[in-house]
Amino acid sequence: MANLVPFWLLLSALLAPFASGDWNILRPKKSHLDLGDSLKIYCESWRVNVELNNVKGFEVVPQECISHVKKYMTSSQYTADSERAIEEVKLYLSTCCSPEGDGTDAWIFDVDDTLLSNIPFYKKHGFGGEKLNETDIEEWMRSSKAPALEHTLKLFNLIRDKGIKIFLISSRGEDLRSPTVDNLIQVGFHGWSALTLRGLEDEGKEVQKYKIKARQRLVDEGYHIWGIVGDQWSSFEGLPAADRRFKLPNSMYYVA
Amino acid sequence: MANLVPFWLLLSALLAPFASGDWNILRPKKSHLDLGDSLKIYCESWRVNVELNNVKGFEVVPQECISHVKKYMTSSQYTADSERAIEEVKLYLSTCCSPEGDGTDAWIFDVDDTLLSNIPFYKKHGFGGEKLNETDIEEWMRSSKAPALEHTLKLFNLIRDKGIKIFLISSRGEDLRSPTVDNLIQVGFHGWSALTLRGLEDEGKEVQKYKIKARQRLVDEGYHIWGIVGDQWSSFEGLPAADRRFKLPNSMYYVA
Repeated sequence: MANLVPFWLLLSALLAPFASGDWNILRPKKSHLDLGDSLKIYCESWRVNVELNNVKGFEVVPQECISHVKKYMTSSQYTADSERAIEEVKLYLSTCCSPEGDGTDAWIFDVDDTLLSNIPFYKKHGFGGEKLNETDIEEWMRSSKAPALEHTLKLFNLIRDKGIKIFLISSRGEDLRSPTVDNLIQVGFHGWSALTLRGLEDEGKEVQKYKIKARQRLVDEGYHIWGIVGDQWSSFEGLPAADRRFKLPNSMYYVA
Repeated sequence: MANLVPFWLLLSALLAPFASGDWNILRPKKSHLDLGDSLKIYCESWRVNVELNNVKGFEVVPQECISHVKKYMTSSQYTADSERAIEEVKLYLSTCCSPEGDGTDAWIFDVDDTLLSNIPFYKKHGFGGEKLNETDIEEWMRSSKAPALEHTLKLFNLIRDKGIKIFLISSRGEDLRSPTVDNLIQVGFHGWSALTLRGLEDEGKEVQKYKIKARQRLVDEGYHIWGIVGDQWSSFEGLPAADRRFKLPNSMYYVA
């Protein structure tokens, strides 16, 4: 019986922290935990302010936040955030507006990280923590291996089936037309009205200005742009604007 | 010695999960954990899509997300997100532009949840989960007890000291002018050029249109609006626009 005393003593000493709700004994030292928490808060606030376009024009993800961005971009939170945005588009489509139905109803989509996911590429290139190598990204785009963003694909089909014409306006170059079309079709996109890519005359032009020009052309042709879905602010800003814009998350890169 | 056998057996059985990295024994049942995680992800995606203005015009915070919004609005993440936005304003002010210096440089701030925090009020009213009672919120505003958002106060002083004129454009009514001014001064704001409140002629008008009109007046008077800091999209959208806008977080209410 004497032998049982140290047993219960040891056991209750071991379990006491759980009973009192203090679990730190099982965690890394508090100072480490605080540091990790501070970094997480810091990087999350960077990421959210990028999404809001309060932080503009970053060239690379700050080094200390690479693992945070990686974690987010491969998380179910990223998927949920995107899906929620797409759900809001559906809500808008069901209640907002009566498309003219005369062939002048238009909707705009970005391509990269809106229809096609570049996460497999960025996975191999530091999730935006490495300065983008043009040759590498072009090689990836030429491979036509980008998967579809599944929730955007469903929305794409829904919009097309409503009789709204879909215009894809991308900052990819004209020289990537063929692999881009191949990639889109392979993963299930079909039935868009036009795919606008950057030609020679648009080279060196800011993406925002190039996209404004593309929208202006649609408006000049008599289209009503009901909405834009994209992952970059340069797809929305400036005039003419769409009636609504829906921002998908992407904190891996910034296109000005 | 025979008594020690159950001791080590029990102890190793108790500690085995930690050695293998499976800590679930100490957590709520997995199904509960999953439910909690799903709800957290769901509510976080609601909140982020509100910030992005993908979700528009909600009347109350969804009931299932009240505790999430409460947690966020009282967290160090909320403070960090706001501070990061303010840091970006400072960065912009230091590099972007050369104010004219002829008295025509202007900056706009919202009042509620930009200069003054209504969190103490919403703490008592379900963090946006209760439909807003006009009498209650007016009583709170008349009490002049809202604390300053400290980081915005510092920015306010910085902008004023640069010689840029500060215009406060608020959706509060003219009848709240005196308690609003009292509140602002008590917590340290002084030296703004004008405080625009909603008069009788603006009643029933959408806040966005009222704020557009206020900006138009500034532009007509020859001002250059370098930036707007606010917590609502209705403070930024429409023309004339400012050169930059900085969105502070607020998922407790939506002003259309």
